Amino acid sequence: MTDLTQLGKQAKETAYQLGLMDTKTKNDLLVHMAAELEKNTAKILLENQKDLATAKENGITETMLDRLRLTDERIKDMADGIRQVATLPDPIGEVDKMWKNEDGLMIGKQRVPLGVIGIIYESRPNVTTDAASLCFKTGNAVILRGGKEAFHSNQVLVTVLQQALKQKGASPFAIQFVDDTSRETAQKLMKLNDYLDVLIPRGGANLIKTVLTTATVPVIETGTGNCHVYIDKDAQLEMATNIIVNAKCQRPSVCNSAETLLIHQEVAADFLPVIEKALNEYNVELRADERALAIFEQSIPATEEDWETEFNDFILAIKVVDSLEEAIQHINRYNTKHSESIISDNYFATQQFLQQVDAAAVYANASTRFTDGFAFGFGAEIGISTQKLHARGPMGLAELTSTKYIVYGDGQYRK
Amino acid sequence: MTDLTQLGKQAKETAYQLGLMDTKTKNDLLVHMAAELEKNTAKILLENQKDLATAKENGITETMLDRLRLTDERIKDMADGIRQVATLPDPIGEVDKMWKNEDGLMIGKQRVPLGVIGIIYESRPNVTTDAASLCFKTGNAVILRGGKEAFHSNQVLVTVLQQALKQKGASPFAIQFVDDTSRETAQKLMKLNDYLDVLIPRGGANLIKTVLTTATVPVIETGTGNCHVYIDKDAQLEMATNIIVNAKCQRPSVCNSAETLLIHQEVAADFLPVIEKALNEYNVELRADERALAIFEQSIPATEEDWETEFNDFILAIKVVDSLEEAIQHINRYNTKHSESIISDNYFATQQFLQQVDAAAVYANASTRFTDGFAFGFGAEIGISTQKLHARGPMGLAELTSTKYIVYGDGQYRK
Repeated sequence: MTDLTQLGKQAKETAYQLGLMDTKTKNDLLVHMAAELEKNTAKILLENQKDLATAKENGITETMLDRLRLTDERIKDMADGIRQVATLPDPIGEVDKMWKNEDGLMIGKQRVPLGVIGIIYESRPNVTTDAASLCFKTGNAVILRGGKEAFHSNQVLVTVLQQALKQKGASPFAIQFVDDTSRETAQKLMKLNDYLDVLIPRGGANLIKTVLTTATVPVIETGTGNCHVYIDKDAQLEMATNIIVNAKCQRPSVCNSAETLLIHQEVAADFLPVIEKALNEYNVELRADERALAIFEQSIPATEEDWETEFNDFILAIKVVDSLEEAIQHINRYNTKHSESIISDNYFATQQFLQQVDAAAVYANASTRFTDGFAFGFGAEIGISTQKLHARGPMGLAELTSTKYIVYGDGQYRK
Repeated sequence: MTDLTQLGKQAKETAYQLGLMDTKTKNDLLVHMAAELEKNTAKILLENQKDLATAKENGITETMLDRLRLTDERIKDMADGIRQVATLPDPIGEVDKMWKNEDGLMIGKQRVPLGVIGIIYESRPNVTTDAASLCFKTGNAVILRGGKEAFHSNQVLVTVLQQALKQKGASPFAIQFVDDTSRETAQKLMKLNDYLDVLIPRGGANLIKTVLTTATVPVIETGTGNCHVYIDKDAQLEMATNIIVNAKCQRPSVCNSAETLLIHQEVAADFLPVIEKALNEYNVELRADERALAIFEQSIPATEEDWETEFNDFILAIKVVDSLEEAIQHINRYNTKHSESIISDNYFATQQFLQQVDAAAVYANASTRFTDGFAFGFGAEIGISTQKLHARGPMGLAELTSTKYIVYGDGQYRK
């Protein structure tokens, strides 16, 4: 069994050095890690084959298999992702603001690393290099604990990154891997308060829930998205159709895709047949409330459970509402505080929706699919926080930092 | 036993209304709460008498008794504290920054309340009104769970605040009180994830530790301060003496007072006798390492435990170090990441100290006593965070908020 205390000690010591490392050194090391990844493609693919073979034996779905699969091109993409992180501005050392207090002290709020970050994640091996590079760039040591499906792939990726660090005289403990996928070890990691400053779970609803209820280390909750699009009575049909089709169909497996369509009763009869036709092209299964059922040609009745469900699939729940207020109430009751959108030409309706809907991102006249670090312009993303503490919404480099106050005095003591 | 689920539901519903309440309404309600506190002075003092009587029966110390005691003047101070919170700028609704992304979306990051805040605290009844007013001002509902020593005082204070809210037609559930001081109820509160957005413990090291290891609700760790003053070889004797005396003696029971003095060996023989004399005026007990023992007239040997201890008393541990680096290492090993200070005329020494010491607040040439929300200019304080997530250092109104992204589009969907 992995000695987590040992990993923790190594991470903590290294985190201190990383926090003081200058930006150029970090960037050069990232670029070298990217090169080493590409150089070791054959070795990585060989390990990935082991995971794929096991997965096939266990009869997992083609979708899951595809998530697990590495190719020359995907390894190049991972390396390019690391190079891109190297090009981003380094938030560490930034003084967001500085002021003089009434005693004449100059007080500055400076960005510093969080310290040691734990990441618990599921099948996709690209999370390994994404998370490692983002944590490294922000001067944090990281302890990665991936899913057992991708064990060999994750392990070899970390080994290559560690070798790259060692080749340049840097500590390999900046990026560590828990080489044991047992539940016991995962639970110990969630309680490693002496060494971990924060734990970020990335994966499905079950993983998130387990981490939230087990961890004593501070957690940033990410991911689950039961997102809504509300079509107001003053909406434009074409815009509404484009947005709901995009929000549902472009990539239904991701957290920022829409799961429920709410539509004002005044436009339901006109709009729904057009929307049904557009969604039919993607074979979307429609689960409709009574009033919508009466309008659609093909749909099945929606149940209470459907309002609560993140389908992650070509399924859309649909409800006709009497008012904007009813739409807002429905959303605030059933959403997971991720992303919500209103389609409306009406100024007051959009303002009311933006202010009253409780979510990490609320949109007027745009698809919920934009909620991510790249689309928001952060250049990268470690996940999407659906909690209110520390970070909310897409988390870029700044969200992987803390602050400290640096105070310049000239002999002040407190009167 | 208190029905925490019921309290939680009430808090959550009210929090939603509070989040949308305009600043003037909140301020008027705060001012009314302050007036009602003063108006009910006799009633409050009567309840406080019950707590004082029990405390005396239990033979608690005069210091503890004084913390518990309310007087006309102290109630007026509490009311004035609430009025002062009313005068502070309201962070809710602020859009810290807004930008256009490459798709033409206008993305703004807006301050919103955290939601429902739990506060678990110990004996001092003024925490009740402080915490209630700060949470109210920031649009958060609060659930207060005070210590059993101050039970009657806390209860009557919350009752008065709730009555004030009701008199003006506002929901009394904005400020709720757990009227049960059992350990079981406290533990349930720490796991009330469905309703609490954050839990802030305020009190001694044991309380903090219990909350940290028990809570599944996100916690902001506050308080414990094992703070250091380091006197460099290039320090000025008078400045160094003033600062260490202030940091140790002005108010030894608080978290930002100093517990250990580190001094460079080059100046130890000259400085320590002067410092000893100054500290003698406050009858400070000196616990010294071997080299300091040889210099002092009166001191006792320091143990390993002394380096780790927050004395909260007129006791100071003292160690002679060979270098700035040794001082930084000692601090990073033993501190609780609260407040640390270097006294030095040397530019490079101060810069190195400010950058390399890991703490919420690091000072050059000033007393550690300045680490609080008032001295920093925040106008108020809910506590001092010693963790790195969400908030670090003195927490003012802004630290009681979260953010959401409001996004203005004109039909964008993701390509």
